[in-house]
Amino acid sequence: MQLGLVGLGKMGFNMRERLRRAGHDVVGYDRAAEVRDVASLEELVDQLEAPRLVWVMVPAGDPTRETVERLGELLDEGDLVIEGGNSRFSDDQRNAEILAERGVRYVDCGVSGGVWGLEEGYGLMAGGAAEDVERAMPVFDALRPEGPREEGFAHAGGVGAGHYAKMVHNGIEYGLMQAYAEGFELLAAAPQVENVPEVLRAWTRGTVVRSWLLDLMVQALERDPQLENLRGYVEDSGEGRWTIEEAINNSVPAPVMSAALFARFASRQDDSPAMRAVAALRQQFGGHAVHH
Amino acid sequence: MQLGLVGLGKMGFNMRERLRRAGHDVVGYDRAAEVRDVASLEELVDQLEAPRLVWVMVPAGDPTRETVERLGELLDEGDLVIEGGNSRFSDDQRNAEILAERGVRYVDCGVSGGVWGLEEGYGLMAGGAAEDVERAMPVFDALRPEGPREEGFAHAGGVGAGHYAKMVHNGIEYGLMQAYAEGFELLAAAPQVENVPEVLRAWTRGTVVRSWLLDLMVQALERDPQLENLRGYVEDSGEGRWTIEEAINNSVPAPVMSAALFARFASRQDDSPAMRAVAALRQQFGGHAVHH
Amino acid sequence: MQLGLVGLGKMGFNMRERLRRAGHDVVGYDRAAEVRDVASLEELVDQLEAPRLVWVMVPAGDPTRETVERLGELLDEGDLVIEGGNSRFSDDQRNAEILAERGVRYVDCGVSGGVWGLEEGYGLMAGGAAEDVERAMPVFDALRPEGPREEGFAHAGGVGAGHYAKMVHNGIEYGLMQAYAEGFELLAAAPQVENVPEVLRAWTRGTVVRSWLLDLMVQALERDPQLENLRGYVEDSGEGRWTIEEAINNSVPAPVMSAALFARFASRQDDSPAMRAVAALRQQFGGHAVHH
Amino acid sequence: MQLGLVGLGKMGFNMRERLRRAGHDVVGYDRAAEVRDVASLEELVDQLEAPRLVWVMVPAGDPTRETVERLGELLDEGDLVIEGGNSRFSDDQRNAEILAERGVRYVDCGVSGGVWGLEEGYGLMAGGAAEDVERAMPVFDALRPEGPREEGFAHAGGVGAGHYAKMVHNGIEYGLMQAYAEGFELLAAAPQVENVPEVLRAWTRGTVVRSWLLDLMVQALERDPQLENLRGYVEDSGEGRWTIEEAINNSVPAPVMSAALFARFASRQDDSPAMRAVAALRQQFGGHAVHH
Repeated sequence: MQLGLVGLGKMGFNMRERLRRAGHDVVGYDRAAEVRDVASLEELVDQLEAPRLVWVMVPAGDPTRETVERLGELLDEGDLVIEGGNSRFSDDQRNAEILAERGVRYVDCGVSGGVWGLEEGYGLMAGGAAEDVERAMPVFDALRPEGPREEGFAHAGGVGAGHYAKMVHNGIEYGLMQAYAEGFELLAAAPQVENVPEVLRAWTRGTVVRSWLLDLMVQALERDPQLENLRGYVEDSGEGRWTIEEAINNSVPAPVMSAALFARFASRQDDSPAMRAVAALRQQFGGHAVHH
Repeated sequence: MQLGLVGLGKMGFNMRERLRRAGHDVVGYDRAAEVRDVASLEELVDQLEAPRLVWVMVPAGDPTRETVERLGELLDEGDLVIEGGNSRFSDDQRNAEILAERGVRYVDCGVSGGVWGLEEGYGLMAGGAAEDVERAMPVFDALRPEGPREEGFAHAGGVGAGHYAKMVHNGIEYGLMQAYAEGFELLAAAPQVENVPEVLRAWTRGTVVRSWLLDLMVQALERDPQLENLRGYVEDSGEGRWTIEEAINNSVPAPVMSAALFARFASRQDDSPAMRAVAALRQQFGGHAVHH
Repeated sequence: MQLGLVGLGKMGFNMRERLRRAGHDVVGYDRAAEVRDVASLEELVDQLEAPRLVWVMVPAGDPTRETVERLGELLDEGDLVIEGGNSRFSDDQRNAEILAERGVRYVDCGVSGGVWGLEEGYGLMAGGAAEDVERAMPVFDALRPEGPREEGFAHAGGVGAGHYAKMVHNGIEYGLMQAYAEGFELLAAAPQVENVPEVLRAWTRGTVVRSWLLDLMVQALERDPQLENLRGYVEDSGEGRWTIEEAINNSVPAPVMSAALFARFASRQDDSPAMRAVAALRQQFGGHAVHH
Repeated sequence: MQLGLVGLGKMGFNMRERLRRAGHDVVGYDRAAEVRDVASLEELVDQLEAPRLVWVMVPAGDPTRETVERLGELLDEGDLVIEGGNSRFSDDQRNAEILAERGVRYVDCGVSGGVWGLEEGYGLMAGGAAEDVERAMPVFDALRPEGPREEGFAHAGGVGAGHYAKMVHNGIEYGLMQAYAEGFELLAAAPQVENVPEVLRAWTRGTVVRSWLLDLMVQALERDPQLENLRGYVEDSGEGRWTIEEAINNSVPAPVMSAALFARFASRQDDSPAMRAVAALRQQFGGHAVHH
């Protein structure tokens, strides 16, 4: 089928390619002239036959909101917008309202898979009305991995449910990564184990901890067995924070997911103010030496 | 090749079967008469041709130590014992010494895979001298999953390294399980998501969090979509505790693995003494109501 | 000086008494007829001479907002409202704006001390313009403990800073309580220590952990040495949640304060959905028994 | 009364002074010639009249064990050794056995108070037989703070209970310090609060979080309001580690005490291997930039 795709960055660029391989007719727009098919959103909308389907894949926050607002002005009743970026679920309701004023439908979709999605397909979680989700199914089917639809796609609930499910997915992801990371550090620190990369590789089949993340870890260690060529400085992109806030809103204990988030915060500090306070206290009561 | 297998419980029974399917000649002994091939350790040793290989798969702690001691009395110089149970790595050095007095060789081997190992193979991590590990390779090859040897087997280091690697594997496993569990609880608690089992199923291909544990979670939810037919009471079998103790010994921060362990402890308490203390304090300073 | 006090609950009632003991002329209003001095907010405002000072001490959220709005209608330019309840700091800016439309000034004030404040005084943290804070100083001086002003009162910053400081105070409080509680549980669990209440009492002078909370703990154990007469069920009143959300907003690692919050959430669960998920996983991969 | 004191370091030196001020006759020995009263343990034992009381205050581990062994050789039946250092509780049983071979009695005593103990007294927790503890009471009374005995001294149980109680005391101390430290960091990070040291000072009377540690924090901030003159590098001296190990041994959840310990470990890492692993994973799956 025909669709518009707004945003051709790291994710959107690959998604256009995967959609085209599946036979879809994709009209792509981006601010970057070298990757886009059309020079403006207006042109994109003009090239699509009504009822249109436009997939939005731009950075979360203001860029997404502005794109939705602009599409609200350009699209017609019965058109459908799918927001596939990393929006916070709480933005979706307002997005839907903005578009509803013009009779434009809205579906949010959490997309997982990163740079591997082009070849392996993307895990998809959609939120919105059943008929809207159904209408976009050929697009979802092209993007998701081979195999049974339900193993790579879910209709999670109403508007916002797709991004909510993706947010929790990322919260879990933080926890999984931190678990492997702590295990790696312990193996590397313990004198008992001589071949850390080989041990992790031996876990990739047959063990309880085998996973795609473990496979990636093995690949990373293959190139750099002690991970010496990078620093332990880890960004976070929002979903982990939102997950903890939602855990708090729902009174759900989240010790592991929050520990993983806080470890990232700490990784970005040259010197911890909290630990300066602890050092100062120890000096006060015990005369313990401090480091300057 | 020919080998003895001591311990035919949940793990050992299946391992004998997998070894036999691979063409090995296994003489199995267990205290339970209905599963064993021979009636005593003496008989087991008698039936094996020297140099013998005996795999021990009995409960960790005293049963393993007693088996090793008894084998030390029965075996001859040049024989090889492989300890494949859930021993603490710190037991291995002593086991090796006991056997070395009689010239018997020792390899420890961490085994992962649970009840699925019979069909899918077991992840193996061995510790010991290179020549001893090499000698047992046909056995390791039969037990490990299909595919490249290094993806299901590692020689982790000297005596004890196999169990050490398996211990860390289990510490990671605790963290992974808790991460999925927290995410599951949040999805179930949040009103936004309507189809929790479907969301988890949609993660099994294409997403960053796909893993074997996730597949198992999906299977569990298939039978019992809200996990209503069991209680949130979780045992632990030692490795998680040892992992945290080793993290402490090596000054390795382990917030996620420890949070997962403590969540298990808490799951087994009907009423938390610590939280009684917090409730008592709140009553003292704020006149806050307490529950009786 | 003369002031109005809106809200005569557990906190406000005692504060009126402490203010009167200090010689202030307090006109108190509450919805509950049996404690109030005047029958309506209108009457309260009428009885005060301009420029008026009105202290608001009603539940956070809607009750506080409605009281502020109503006071905005009743008060005159140059009057001053002090919001001393448990409002979230983010409410203060809006409160100040509502009142500013009528030329009414606004100060927020975090108040700590609980039921002991009547006799021992309240710790106070104020936010607002310097001249407004200065004007209310006789009231602050009456409410705060004896001793140097700076040991019981701080002007923390602009509007909202008082409640922000109080929020962090409560986040710390959560952490302190949980630390004592974990220590108590460990002492009670360990066979080595026979006299747990006596050990805690022996910490009240001379040790590094001595504190007012410890004194309260000792008092609680005096009445109920094993805390058998209450349940480990602990509410939370919002500030702990907000503290973690602010830690996240400011990328501040907060492992201790968050662990204390999550322990409260867990204390209120009869059965943990997360731990049901862990139990289900263990059953799936290891055939481990589950509890029903 | 007369007693010997072995070890005149930071703690022992001050304790000798406090004991002398109370009228006790203290014979002090240390390896450092400039502080000691006698030149050898032999001389110390010679100068004491039987039945002797010798307080040991040397570093935990080998120095303490060696001192106990040497005293076992020098002392006579009926003499009493008090081990007041930072020994692990599990060392006490063996110490007692070594001395019991010669009929020498043994009491262990946890001592809290740091450099302030000279003036304010030391919190004391003793373990041993009732008659031995009773015999040393004049010494305990001199060392503990003024006031009721039970507020600065406890007989916690049998041999080892004193050090056990002190260990838990320190575990709590870790948690308390970390709670204040996290609150300090959040206050310092938040733009809303302008006067962080003043806010902490205002908590020292009247609030729920008032404590001796808070007083020390205020003093530290007085000299260095942003704690700029030290680094966030924090050592640990063993008790925190042992506390977590005991929590694990007793299946006691200890999320706060362990988080405080792990924060110290992390504070000493220039670059976290675990966070390098997380960064490597993010690069693998998402093409996220890493820092070099």
